Amino acid sequence: MPEPAGRTTHRVRYPETDRMGVAHHSHYVVWFELGRTELMRSLGCPYGSLEDRHALFFPVIDLAAAYRKPARYDQVLEIRTWLTSVTGARVRFDYEIRDEDEDLLATGHSVHASVGAEGKPRRLPEEIREKLSAAMVRELAS
Amino acid sequence: MPEPAGRTTHRVRYPETDRMGVAHHSHYVVWFELGRTELMRSLGCPYGSLEDRHALFFPVIDLAAAYRKPARYDQVLEIRTWLTSVTGARVRFDYEIRDEDEDLLATGHSVHASVGAEGKPRRLPEEIREKLSAAMVRELAS
Amino acid sequence: MPEPAGRTTHRVRYPETDRMGVAHHSHYVVWFELGRTELMRSLGCPYGSLEDRHALFFPVIDLAAAYRKPARYDQVLEIRTWLTSVTGARVRFDYEIRDEDEDLLATGHSVHASVGAEGKPRRLPEEIREKLSAAMVRELAS
Amino acid sequence: MPEPAGRTTHRVRYPETDRMGVAHHSHYVVWFELGRTELMRSLGCPYGSLEDRHALFFPVIDLAAAYRKPARYDQVLEIRTWLTSVTGARVRFDYEIRDEDEDLLATGHSVHASVGAEGKPRRLPEEIREKLSAAMVRELAS
Repeated sequence: MPEPAGRTTHRVRYPETDRMGVAHHSHYVVWFELGRTELMRSLGCPYGSLEDRHALFFPVIDLAAAYRKPARYDQVLEIRTWLTSVTGARVRFDYEIRDEDEDLLATGHSVHASVGAEGKPRRLPEEIREKLSAAMVRELAS
Repeated sequence: MPEPAGRTTHRVRYPETDRMGVAHHSHYVVWFELGRTELMRSLGCPYGSLEDRHALFFPVIDLAAAYRKPARYDQVLEIRTWLTSVTGARVRFDYEIRDEDEDLLATGHSVHASVGAEGKPRRLPEEIREKLSAAMVRELAS
Repeated sequence: MPEPAGRTTHRVRYPETDRMGVAHHSHYVVWFELGRTELMRSLGCPYGSLEDRHALFFPVIDLAAAYRKPARYDQVLEIRTWLTSVTGARVRFDYEIRDEDEDLLATGHSVHASVGAEGKPRRLPEEIREKLSAAMVRELAS
Repeated sequence: MPEPAGRTTHRVRYPETDRMGVAHHSHYVVWFELGRTELMRSLGCPYGSLEDRHALFFPVIDLAAAYRKPARYDQVLEIRTWLTSVTGARVRFDYEIRDEDEDLLATGHSVHASVGAEGKPRRLPEEIREKLSAAMVRELAS
C-alpha cells in the first residue's frame, strides 16, 4: 500500500452516534469528504477556490464504502486519502478510516465528475490537473 | 391555546437518534423547519417559490427550543406550527412537537428576517405579507 | 426490472441542499435507509422490533451509490427498494431514487450483517428470514 | 465580557452549507456542542466518561441561538464557551461563534439537566460539580 497523499483526523461527535451506540454509517461519507478536502488543500488546490475562481465543481458520481469495525463516540479517527485517478473530466479518491490503534474501520472511494456552473462536463484546467496528478498513486484504483 | 395553523408529521429516523437512545436535540431544529415549510405551502406561499420567484430569503435570526420529553426511534411525531408575528421584514413561528399520545415533547420558536439575494433586509412584498398574515395568531407570541 | 418490493417518498429538505444548490450526496444514504425501513415495516418486520424484541441488529457492511442527476430542494422523490439477497446472516437491499417525472436520480445498494447485541454475527431467526425472503427478487443482485 | 473558559475551532464543511450558500442554522447547535465538549475535556471532565463511568447524562432542556452574520464554506470558526451556571442538577453553557476576523456570527446558550441512565434527575456528583464550578463565570448568565 503506498503512502496516503493525505491524512487528516476527526473526533467522533455525539450526534454522529446512533442508538446502536456507534457512529451511523452515513457520516463516513462526510468523513471521506473531509479527507479529500484536506488533501486538495495540501496540493495547492483548495476545493472552495475551484468553485469560486474556476467555476468548477466536483459532484460525486460514484461512491462506495465497506465497514469493518464500528467507530465510537469521542474516538479520534484518522482519514487517509489517496488520489487514484485523474483523467480529463474525472477524479477518483480512495479512503481508509483508522482508529487510534491504527485498526482499520472502513475503506471506500468516490469518483467525481468535473463540471461547470451549469452542470455540464468540463475538462479539468491544465493547472488543476497537474497539481492533482502530482499526488496520484495509480496502483490503488481497482 | 389557539388551533395551530399547520400540522405535519415526521417519523423519527435511525440516524436522528444518538447513543443516549433518543433523538439528538439538533434535529428538532430541522423538524421546526418542516413545520413552517408545510405551513407556508398550505398558505399558498411555498418557501421555494419565495426564493425562486421573488428572490426573497428568510434566514433564521433567533431560535429557541425547550425539551421536555425525549423522542424515540420510529415514533411518529406531530409538529404543530403557529405564525405568531408578521411585520415589515420579520416573521415569527412558534412550534410544538407531540408524540402519538399527544404528549408534549418540545416547544420552540424561530424569528426570520426577510432579505434579498444580496443579504440586505427587504420588506415583505404585500402579496406575501397578506397570505402569511391570514394565518397569524397574535396571542401566542411571548 | 422486477417491481420494487417497497416504494416510499421523501421531500428534499432545505438543510439537505448544499451551496451547489442541490442535495448533498451524503443524504442519499439516509434516503436508502428510509426505503429499507418502510419495506421491512410492510413485510411485518419493522426494524425497531428486530432490535427491541429480538436484540438483532443490521449494521451496514457494504454500501454503494451511483449518482446520475441532482435532486433539488422541495422535490418529492420516490425511493424504490428491492430485497435482493437473504442468507444466514446477510441481507442485501437495492435502491433507486426517482423524481416526480420518474427520472432516475440515483441507484445504490447496501449489505447488512445480522448481529446480536454484543456485535457478534447471529443467524437470522427463521421467522424473520421467512418474512424477508417472501419479498426477495434474486435477479437484481449484481 | 470575561475570558471564555474554552475555545475550539471548526472549519465549515460543504454539507453544512445549504442552497442559500451559507451554513444552515441547525449546524450551529452541533458547533455549540463541540464547544462544551472541549471545555469539559479541558476541565478533566470529558463528557464520555460522565456517561461511561458515572452513568450520568446531560440532555439539553433549553436552547437558544441568535444569528448575526452567516458562516461560509471553509471558514475556520472559533467557538468560545463559558460555563455560566452549575447547580445541583443543572448546568448552563453560553457560546459565541466568531470568524477569522473575530466578527461575531452567533451567540447562544444551552441548559442541561443532570440525569441518570433511567432518565431521572440526579444530583451532580461532588467531584464533577467541583471541576465544573472551577470554570464558572457567574456574570454572563442572563
